[in-house]
Amino acid sequence: MICEIGVLGLGVMGSSLAENFIRNGFPTALYSREPFERDRFARRNLSGYVMTDSLSAFAASLQRPRRIVMMITAGPAVDAVKDAIAPYLEEGDILVDGGNSYYEDTNRRTFEYAQLGLNFVGMGVSGGERGALEGPSMMVGGSDDAWKALAPYLQKAAAKAGDVICCNHVGEGGSGHYVKMVHNGIEYAVMELIAETWQLLREGYGLREEEIADLFDGMKDGRLSSYLAEITAKVLRYPDEDGSPLVEKILPVAGQKGTGKWTTLESVERGVYTPMIYESASVRSFSEHRTAFPGYGSGYFLTLESDCDTKVIEDALYLGIVCCYAQGLSLIRKASETFGWNINLAASASLWEGGCIIRSEMLKDIVAAYEEDPQLENLLFSERFGDLEQEREALQEVCASAMLAHIPAPAYQTAVTYYDACFAPELNLAMVQGLRDCFGAHTYRRIDQEGVFHTEWEK
Amino acid sequence: MICEIGVLGLGVMGSSLAENFIRNGFPTALYSREPFERDRFARRNLSGYVMTDSLSAFAASLQRPRRIVMMITAGPAVDAVKDAIAPYLEEGDILVDGGNSYYEDTNRRTFEYAQLGLNFVGMGVSGGERGALEGPSMMVGGSDDAWKALAPYLQKAAAKAGDVICCNHVGEGGSGHYVKMVHNGIEYAVMELIAETWQLLREGYGLREEEIADLFDGMKDGRLSSYLAEITAKVLRYPDEDGSPLVEKILPVAGQKGTGKWTTLESVERGVYTPMIYESASVRSFSEHRTAFPGYGSGYFLTLESDCDTKVIEDALYLGIVCCYAQGLSLIRKASETFGWNINLAASASLWEGGCIIRSEMLKDIVAAYEEDPQLENLLFSERFGDLEQEREALQEVCASAMLAHIPAPAYQTAVTYYDACFAPELNLAMVQGLRDCFGAHTYRRIDQEGVFHTEWEK
Repeated sequence: MICEIGVLGLGVMGSSLAENFIRNGFPTALYSREPFERDRFARRNLSGYVMTDSLSAFAASLQRPRRIVMMITAGPAVDAVKDAIAPYLEEGDILVDGGNSYYEDTNRRTFEYAQLGLNFVGMGVSGGERGALEGPSMMVGGSDDAWKALAPYLQKAAAKAGDVICCNHVGEGGSGHYVKMVHNGIEYAVMELIAETWQLLREGYGLREEEIADLFDGMKDGRLSSYLAEITAKVLRYPDEDGSPLVEKILPVAGQKGTGKWTTLESVERGVYTPMIYESASVRSFSEHRTAFPGYGSGYFLTLESDCDTKVIEDALYLGIVCCYAQGLSLIRKASETFGWNINLAASASLWEGGCIIRSEMLKDIVAAYEEDPQLENLLFSERFGDLEQEREALQEVCASAMLAHIPAPAYQTAVTYYDACFAPELNLAMVQGLRDCFGAHTYRRIDQEGVFHTEWEK
Repeated sequence: MICEIGVLGLGVMGSSLAENFIRNGFPTALYSREPFERDRFARRNLSGYVMTDSLSAFAASLQRPRRIVMMITAGPAVDAVKDAIAPYLEEGDILVDGGNSYYEDTNRRTFEYAQLGLNFVGMGVSGGERGALEGPSMMVGGSDDAWKALAPYLQKAAAKAGDVICCNHVGEGGSGHYVKMVHNGIEYAVMELIAETWQLLREGYGLREEEIADLFDGMKDGRLSSYLAEITAKVLRYPDEDGSPLVEKILPVAGQKGTGKWTTLESVERGVYTPMIYESASVRSFSEHRTAFPGYGSGYFLTLESDCDTKVIEDALYLGIVCCYAQGLSLIRKASETFGWNINLAASASLWEGGCIIRSEMLKDIVAAYEEDPQLENLLFSERFGDLEQEREALQEVCASAMLAHIPAPAYQTAVTYYDACFAPELNLAMVQGLRDCFGAHTYRRIDQEGVFHTEWEK
């Protein structure tokens, strides 16, 4: 059997994606250097594929141009496999990296392969094991030619959200991995908002997990409908052996695989203001740090006297999530300008409509906003999100309640700050500039005259 | 004349520091490659120094071990000069870099010089032109031996704050530049707090610049006494040609020289939570971005109905500034552990008591806190800062007022979040961990059992 597509690496994600291709009827070549992974795959009882036990056999079983999707852990292994398989590839063949690689590595690898006449394609894949099997979201970088050769296969295997196929070409080089990185940054921030909501309702308003789950379940038909809201209700309802909510037994320390940190570092490098992504990644690091030192945690929460207005909570969460997307998409916009990727933001956002962790009802409005104005500078300026005064007041109320209850709510707090910083008639930097000029002669500009000025303030 | 110390580079900072050494009676050798800088220095009408016009003459005029303080702009020029002068130096000679170099560059340069048997010393200098002339704060890295040879000269020229000499050895390698970098990060955050205070008083409470200046002037005898409060009053009072406050005419766009950004990137790398430094650096970038796009700034401020309680403002500002120092010192603590610098935090903080931009009355308590407990994990846990409930409530009130007035106050908002995140009995990460385990099988730990767990939440 001559195969049309190959999957290299048969871990959880690789096996699932391979089964996805096979079920879609594509003759598929498989390879893993681990015999136990090959054996495990055989037990899936599928037909229509060729299992190979060497890179040469793998390459030989593929028609030209070879289309190989590599599903291995990001890091040095990617370079090792890329270099090991290159001798078996011919001009125009395509190696896709479906892991969470850093976009600068992908830029480099794409360049190195191009020198050999080969195509290296960085592709962000979201959706976990189940997504890979049933249809993930796929954000594809690399050259146009490579995309044309890959599209029929990847788009067939991808998630669909109504008419939208959640797999497309984002741009050249590492742009696919970049968009996936930002997807994860948004994911961090939305989860942090949800966790803050949970803690406020629980500690501040004294609600039980079941009541909080009802609130999240109630979101499924409205503008807050989303995968994360859906699984939040499931997590809240899941009982421990003694019948109490399991979530109460989880150690409140969260790790991270690096994409949240990368997104934060990137936004600082590019000068893009993404405080909610910063906070959600940083609070995770801080939670690890807190456990190591006993001084932390010596305070107390206060129970609020007022009743919880769920409409206010929902409105605040809505605008909070809009701000997460706004911050992430602003970063993609800036990176696209900086690197010349020419990314279509509407198309990029549409890739998140199905299959991935941040899929949500509100992405329809987000995609529409960028379709109506491809040059849209910030999501908050779109008419689609034009009248959010009520939600802005709700955000403020949630922040005030969290402060009253002594509950740290950094994502909510920075959401309101971000919103106000976008719309404020003026920022406060005139004072900062005056101080800098006073102590360090850093100079300043004026609102009413051209030029650069210095004043001897202390005279 | 055989000189005891040399200054290389006669720009604003170099000339001032040279004059400082000369006035202190040290025979001083000077060199600049720019003839106009040498001529300009000659017009200072000082005696007791040797002006040279080549690196060889400069080196020849210095006694052994040569002590050379290089005052040139950070960047490639530092490597160029360091390499150009090396052939004229002998074993044990010392080249001090007094610019704002990045600490990793300093680590590398120190290593490179050590290979040649020479001492490279990275030294952070704060205080601007006036500080350099009258006594700067100096944070010195490099080897113990180099420090011993430099100490008599640098300590004589340094700022004094009562009995405290604001110049000392911080630790090996780039640690001096690291401490200076964090000094600047704290400086950014304190200035942002001051600017937010100004905007809240002005836009929210309708106070005039003169009234706000009175408030800052009133701080000079209390616990808020500081150089930055002092110059804030001066900036607020300075009249433009038409008699109105000049600060109102300054374009609210602030640049940065990079140390705020470096501090932010470093804190993300080290996993140390410094949200106020992040915000103050990011808002500057955002202010540059805002001017480029017309959508920003279309909102409005609201005037508050309540009267301004200046006691609340002062209490909030006090705790806000404590949190700035707490975040910066936590970062130094972590870097010291990570790089094996063994930094004495009390001694480091004492270097900031005079000469530098963040000198303040409260540094006395900060130094005492670390003297009483050198292992102190976070400044907020010291008994010196033990009873801040009233200030915590004041912070909350200021944040609530800022939100009501639609004034972005990211430093205040993240101060209260930071404080609450330190003292909260629990962070909200149990929910985040539940979600991560649900969609990605990331596993979690429990509060009541050892081990790592995974749950099939959707079943």
